[in-house]
Amino acid sequence: MKLVEGGWPGGTTLEATLPGGYYTSPPMFQRELERIWFTTWLCAGRVDQIPHTGDFLAHQVGDESIIVVRGRQGGINAFYNVCRHRGARLCTEEAGTFKGGLIRCPYHSWTYDTSQGALVAAPNVPEDRELFDKARFPLVSLRVQTWEGYIWVNFNPQAPALEAALGLPASNAYYERYHVGDLTVGKVISYEVNANWKIVMENGLECYHCLHIHPELSRCTPPLLPRHWLHDDLPETKVFKHSGGMELAPGFETATLDGRPRRPRFPDLAAPDRRTIYYAFIYPQMLLAFAPDYVFFFAVWPLAVDKTKVWAYWLFEPSVVAGANFDPSDAVDFWDITNRQDWQACALVHQGNQSRAYRSGGVLIQNEWRVTKFKRYVLEELEERDGEPPRKPAG
Amino acid sequence: MKLVEGGWPGGTTLEATLPGGYYTSPPMFQRELERIWFTTWLCAGRVDQIPHTGDFLAHQVGDESIIVVRGRQGGINAFYNVCRHRGARLCTEEAGTFKGGLIRCPYHSWTYDTSQGALVAAPNVPEDRELFDKARFPLVSLRVQTWEGYIWVNFNPQAPALEAALGLPASNAYYERYHVGDLTVGKVISYEVNANWKIVMENGLECYHCLHIHPELSRCTPPLLPRHWLHDDLPETKVFKHSGGMELAPGFETATLDGRPRRPRFPDLAAPDRRTIYYAFIYPQMLLAFAPDYVFFFAVWPLAVDKTKVWAYWLFEPSVVAGANFDPSDAVDFWDITNRQDWQACALVHQGNQSRAYRSGGVLIQNEWRVTKFKRYVLEELEERDGEPPRKPAG
Amino acid sequence: MKLVEGGWPGGTTLEATLPGGYYTSPPMFQRELERIWFTTWLCAGRVDQIPHTGDFLAHQVGDESIIVVRGRQGGINAFYNVCRHRGARLCTEEAGTFKGGLIRCPYHSWTYDTSQGALVAAPNVPEDRELFDKARFPLVSLRVQTWEGYIWVNFNPQAPALEAALGLPASNAYYERYHVGDLTVGKVISYEVNANWKIVMENGLECYHCLHIHPELSRCTPPLLPRHWLHDDLPETKVFKHSGGMELAPGFETATLDGRPRRPRFPDLAAPDRRTIYYAFIYPQMLLAFAPDYVFFFAVWPLAVDKTKVWAYWLFEPSVVAGANFDPSDAVDFWDITNRQDWQACALVHQGNQSRAYRSGGVLIQNEWRVTKFKRYVLEELEERDGEPPRKPAG
Repeated sequence: MKLVEGGWPGGTTLEATLPGGYYTSPPMFQRELERIWFTTWLCAGRVDQIPHTGDFLAHQVGDESIIVVRGRQGGINAFYNVCRHRGARLCTEEAGTFKGGLIRCPYHSWTYDTSQGALVAAPNVPEDRELFDKARFPLVSLRVQTWEGYIWVNFNPQAPALEAALGLPASNAYYERYHVGDLTVGKVISYEVNANWKIVMENGLECYHCLHIHPELSRCTPPLLPRHWLHDDLPETKVFKHSGGMELAPGFETATLDGRPRRPRFPDLAAPDRRTIYYAFIYPQMLLAFAPDYVFFFAVWPLAVDKTKVWAYWLFEPSVVAGANFDPSDAVDFWDITNRQDWQACALVHQGNQSRAYRSGGVLIQNEWRVTKFKRYVLEELEERDGEPPRKPAG
Repeated sequence: MKLVEGGWPGGTTLEATLPGGYYTSPPMFQRELERIWFTTWLCAGRVDQIPHTGDFLAHQVGDESIIVVRGRQGGINAFYNVCRHRGARLCTEEAGTFKGGLIRCPYHSWTYDTSQGALVAAPNVPEDRELFDKARFPLVSLRVQTWEGYIWVNFNPQAPALEAALGLPASNAYYERYHVGDLTVGKVISYEVNANWKIVMENGLECYHCLHIHPELSRCTPPLLPRHWLHDDLPETKVFKHSGGMELAPGFETATLDGRPRRPRFPDLAAPDRRTIYYAFIYPQMLLAFAPDYVFFFAVWPLAVDKTKVWAYWLFEPSVVAGANFDPSDAVDFWDITNRQDWQACALVHQGNQSRAYRSGGVLIQNEWRVTKFKRYVLEELEERDGEPPRKPAG
Repeated sequence: MKLVEGGWPGGTTLEATLPGGYYTSPPMFQRELERIWFTTWLCAGRVDQIPHTGDFLAHQVGDESIIVVRGRQGGINAFYNVCRHRGARLCTEEAGTFKGGLIRCPYHSWTYDTSQGALVAAPNVPEDRELFDKARFPLVSLRVQTWEGYIWVNFNPQAPALEAALGLPASNAYYERYHVGDLTVGKVISYEVNANWKIVMENGLECYHCLHIHPELSRCTPPLLPRHWLHDDLPETKVFKHSGGMELAPGFETATLDGRPRRPRFPDLAAPDRRTIYYAFIYPQMLLAFAPDYVFFFAVWPLAVDKTKVWAYWLFEPSVVAGANFDPSDAVDFWDITNRQDWQACALVHQGNQSRAYRSGGVLIQNEWRVTKFKRYVLEELEERDGEPPRKPAG
């Protein structure tokens, strides 16, 4: 792919979408959980959301609930949200603090350390290692890595390291001048969308719909202005994808409803960066948008074949967030309005994708070349392995 | 069958109902969709409901949504409610008007003609037929016919024409003096019933329950008064069925709560017609009731194995509807009360049919001979074809 | 097992719980219905709840609804809640009175006797035994027995008699001094719990959780006080299980929030009984608690794999209930508070048991030896029979 101004970098041929059943079949959803969600690095938030011992975040994938917690030794750890004794859910909140840095099961008070997940107390069980060895019953842990302030978890103990999966640092070199690792979360919002997770991601992967459902976004970064596509030789991996940038409309200095500057720009930006909103994607889950004075991103979490949770985050300079009158509402409103427009469209797509008339799917035009890339990723992940015959969606 | 006054035209033997699993098994429901609902002419309303270009009605069968629309060339057309681009639901209203006679997808504004379903605009797609030929992406259409003012649709492109299926005009000759094609819809009500669609139809097919749950109906047309059965040699088809008539009670001049005349009788009625409410059925969906001064009918639409939508319509002379003080409430209340009594009973039947004690079903008495006919129709439609082995309900 | 004060009568080895799928897999739930619930004696309430002809109780197991009714000949009978004609649910109330001791179907008024379930009236069906023999269409009955004032039903016509299943009278000899057969229901409460029925039973089978979630119960009968275990040679059967007793705390004279005596003790109690709350269990369903002045018990009914109904009953001396100012609230509040704490814990267990991290289950410690017994009962009931291969849970 070459650097193209306002062209179609995806080539000139049309491409079929995934068949409708990929979005609506429960067995396909189960397959995706196993092939994608339980083997891939997932972004579970930002390290500064859980600064103190015992601070935690909880996330859900299908019926799985996981806890991401700041451990007593200062590191961040992740565990299945399941007691090893009788299987009770350990916590039902989405965020909070475990007192004393210990996770206490609400049923029989079995108590686990937040560093290794070690069972440190099982009340009234005889203290006799021959009879009951606490070392046999730690919480089941997930792998955790952090990078640029993002927390990453992986259900798969054998997965390649995060750096390999994301192709770091090369993949991210283009965005380094935003110093995302130094930024602080200024706002978090979660949404539940009545659509398959891929519909939510595919919606984020194309701006063909922007002119039609996003008047606010289109005023700020008109879809018909020249776009700044990135060189094809920018390093990518299977999951880390570059998307290019959209130019701010005259009079707009950042991605907000009125475009007025309300906080300092990031200091290291080059001149074009000050007039551009860049986008990047990390499959299967994330959209990232780099504005001159803040970074927005979201991560999708599939709850069911037809229901998806989206966590959205707004990042700012720490000094901005710490300011006496910190008010992120200009940036928050801009994306919150845009997100809600998207989720409504996604629900309509999910409904229609159930139809017999969509069994063989629809069509992707040139402007949707990023959706085509994503489709190929999904198909590659789902394809047969270990000599297993390929499956078709049940729909 | 001979003309019988107050007798049992169905013969003297008892008949088993369908087994309980036919009403409650999700795989059976899927089979019915394929074998009955997606191959049969279905009544989608009345032509005078959508008089102007772009006026539409939407209906649902299982997860399928369809649009019936008055096209720009004046005809009535039907389409799957699914955009060909990314599969979005095109409209979520049950009735309304597409502006300009064009159906615009709410996602990317692909725009379709209401006459042929042709894709007339795909914004920002290069206008190059080599790259993107709009002719390849029309809406998927359903067959449409009209007859006597009813709109009929069929998912099956190979189905015999409506006239053949309904046996027209012979089947309908008996009711021609009501001039239904000239009547106008005066009221429409839709209901959601918590029961399988066959339970709803079977309820309409027998008046054995009338004395027990319909005091208003029974006062008007007492079930124990002589009935006017129709000659067996009246032409019928697999789906068009005659039922005979019920005599109005003394003091009642039409099918309303008090029986008082509030509008002129239809002009061509014979003397007996003025004292009789005639019934006819069109499988799998319709009950029609002919009163001296109005026609009532309903059409059932299966939403799920245990949920059915019923559209009910009241038809009057156009001059009556156009009258300054048009008030159909006497006719509407009569059937609305009766319908709600029926839907409550149907829900109880659905609940009980789930039982192990009903696995082999129940019994149809002589008075329920129309239900027996309907059962045979269902079994015939569901039976094996093309060498496929017969299926049993999962229940 | 020996008489042990404060020890672990269950042995010293740890035991695995059932795998998570046993609690969450719909096919496993269906198998349990067939293997346990439709072949075992179930407690449907107390005879004094339905003293008069036509008085009834209704219960649900999965999709099955049953009616337990005082018949016209004075006995108690049970029937599937399904009309033999078209399969309608006969009644939708959980308790009430059938007028005239006759069960009239709300659809076509087919009317059944409450003694034999005989069809006594089918309106407007020709009275001709050649054509329609009413004797062919009685309600489908369940077996019923009563014992000590409890009503028992069994879906299985071939099941051994209640006495054999419960090992009567030997199994119950220990509790005879409570004269439960003479007691009267003073209060009934029903609960819906968002958990598998086994989780509800297992919760009742151990008091390891009491100190952690039941402050009121733990004040009354502190879990760390000596317990009175019963001799191992006390007669038990596969379903009738003894559990031993918990000593009342100083200052408590019965199982209430403040322990103050508010009614006479049962007259035949021995001295230790006056300081002890005894527990017994009848699989798969019942927990019984014997206090010095009242008896509490509950019976669980599985509605779905993840939903369980619990009927709770408080029994008192008839003279107490008949008293002018009868007020059972001290006993009711004590258990109602405790029950609600339990149901909340059970819901957490159900959620966690869905996890991949709980596929092989958890661990039972010595203090949970009654849960181990129950697990073995469940496994024995579910194991293969008639040469059928063993099944594994789908989870």
